[in-house]
Amino acid sequence: MPRFGALEAGGTKMVCAVGDEQGHILERISLPTRTPENTMPEMLAFFQDKDLAAIGIGCFGPVDLDPSSPTYGSILSTPKLSWRNFPIVQRFEDALGIPVGIDTDVNAAALGEAVWGCTRDVRNSVYITVGTGVGLGVIIGGKPHHGMIHPEAGHIFMDRRPDDPLEQGVCPYHGNCLEGLASGPAIERRWGRKAQDLTDCNAVWELEAYYIGQAICDYIMMISPEKIVLGGGVMHQQQMLPLVRKEVHRQLHGYLQGKGLDDLDHYIVPISLGDNQGVMGAVKLAMDAYDRQAGK
Amino acid sequence: MPRFGALEAGGTKMVCAVGDEQGHILERISLPTRTPENTMPEMLAFFQDKDLAAIGIGCFGPVDLDPSSPTYGSILSTPKLSWRNFPIVQRFEDALGIPVGIDTDVNAAALGEAVWGCTRDVRNSVYITVGTGVGLGVIIGGKPHHGMIHPEAGHIFMDRRPDDPLEQGVCPYHGNCLEGLASGPAIERRWGRKAQDLTDCNAVWELEAYYIGQAICDYIMMISPEKIVLGGGVMHQQQMLPLVRKEVHRQLHGYLQGKGLDDLDHYIVPISLGDNQGVMGAVKLAMDAYDRQAGK
Repeated sequence: MPRFGALEAGGTKMVCAVGDEQGHILERISLPTRTPENTMPEMLAFFQDKDLAAIGIGCFGPVDLDPSSPTYGSILSTPKLSWRNFPIVQRFEDALGIPVGIDTDVNAAALGEAVWGCTRDVRNSVYITVGTGVGLGVIIGGKPHHGMIHPEAGHIFMDRRPDDPLEQGVCPYHGNCLEGLASGPAIERRWGRKAQDLTDCNAVWELEAYYIGQAICDYIMMISPEKIVLGGGVMHQQQMLPLVRKEVHRQLHGYLQGKGLDDLDHYIVPISLGDNQGVMGAVKLAMDAYDRQAGK
Repeated sequence: MPRFGALEAGGTKMVCAVGDEQGHILERISLPTRTPENTMPEMLAFFQDKDLAAIGIGCFGPVDLDPSSPTYGSILSTPKLSWRNFPIVQRFEDALGIPVGIDTDVNAAALGEAVWGCTRDVRNSVYITVGTGVGLGVIIGGKPHHGMIHPEAGHIFMDRRPDDPLEQGVCPYHGNCLEGLASGPAIERRWGRKAQDLTDCNAVWELEAYYIGQAICDYIMMISPEKIVLGGGVMHQQQMLPLVRKEVHRQLHGYLQGKGLDDLDHYIVPISLGDNQGVMGAVKLAMDAYDRQAGK
């Protein structure tokens, strides 16, 4: 059975894995993200001599995903300057001589859940991660959605709650966007302590659920997903999921009926693959790259 | 050459037309929308004896578009009570004995532009109409997007401009959503006069462009369309399109680069089919229903 390489490329760590076509993860290591000069050789050392059929990458972004573009497979305007304009797909292809697939980190995680996890029963889903940043992976008709670039839906604008003690969101681009008001750094700026030190403060999580719930309403209005998956560090707070469902119900205000919305407990769900949805999605990206190469 | 029926079903008028498979509109009438008991016989009188291969309907909504649902093809929770739960597809099928296709009015208009109009060069586009209500049609991979229900993206939440004289938006469900703050009724409530009597008031259109521009930023972040079409009564104001482009540029704040965003004049465009994108899209819905029936 062919084996596939999987890379979950993040701003702080690189998770390298090997999986099979059932999505089983056979091997997995985590490396700190330093510069390409330091980190590429370490990653290649892991993937080399593993007899891989292809590699898939779920990458921090933005990423150029347009196959007709001269910079296809490059990381674009990331704040991690040493990785800006880095042609990550090309470098892996050159070094390993096998097909390389790529998508955003959040699309890869959404794909992992859609193929092997909690959204495998639907064709249209979104995966939201709330942590240091806020990201959205979008699956439409069973495939990761791209469009002009790819969704960057952590940056949709928010209706600020009037009593929010944070006067201006922390996003340097948009101020009061979702990431600006609901990311980990926004929580820390607002309350003066890190999220994990605020577990017992109900006001913190009620306000957080207000923004995440509002964003989910927007995603429902715009994309109409059949299921919504919530992950990321902030969602490790046990009280969050019920609070978010309550806010979605309250803010939708009965405007849309039927189907998933009658049963939010099964419509808005937690991640189902532990910490593996990203690398499992990358395995699927590798499988698709392999099939494309084989002309399937 | 086969001929197709097309119905643009709106809350105030029903546009009935006949078209061919090039999208040419051969005949077209407009009827006032009264009750189904009054209006259905008038529409059937138009479509009967025209030797049509199929009919397509672009319908005010929400509409049940799930083929597996027992109420597929029915109008759902519309404020027009006599049409609520009306099985419009079934009634046309029963009366005319030909295949009937249906989608939302905005998806039909988006489809008309995508097949024969200004978005025919791209696979992913959105069509926004701003008038009595605000609606969004979404084309992904060349097809109208549905998901769980269908987009209702006139109701995404807005970051209210602090100096907006309207304290609370007019949407009875969501208050400060796009429709609540930027629809024709919102303009009238805010300024005490109808939009068409405010043409010379710059402040009116700058604030209007602030909200429409913000919504377009959200659509870009979420759906990443390759082109955006703006229509509806409010967009008849000649000053609007340049103001909207300026606001999109300002509010995106350089976060996304490349492609369409470098050239907003060709990225955010006016409707291109006059008043016919809705019925032309309905012709395409009829063609697709005909092909499905024929097993193509």
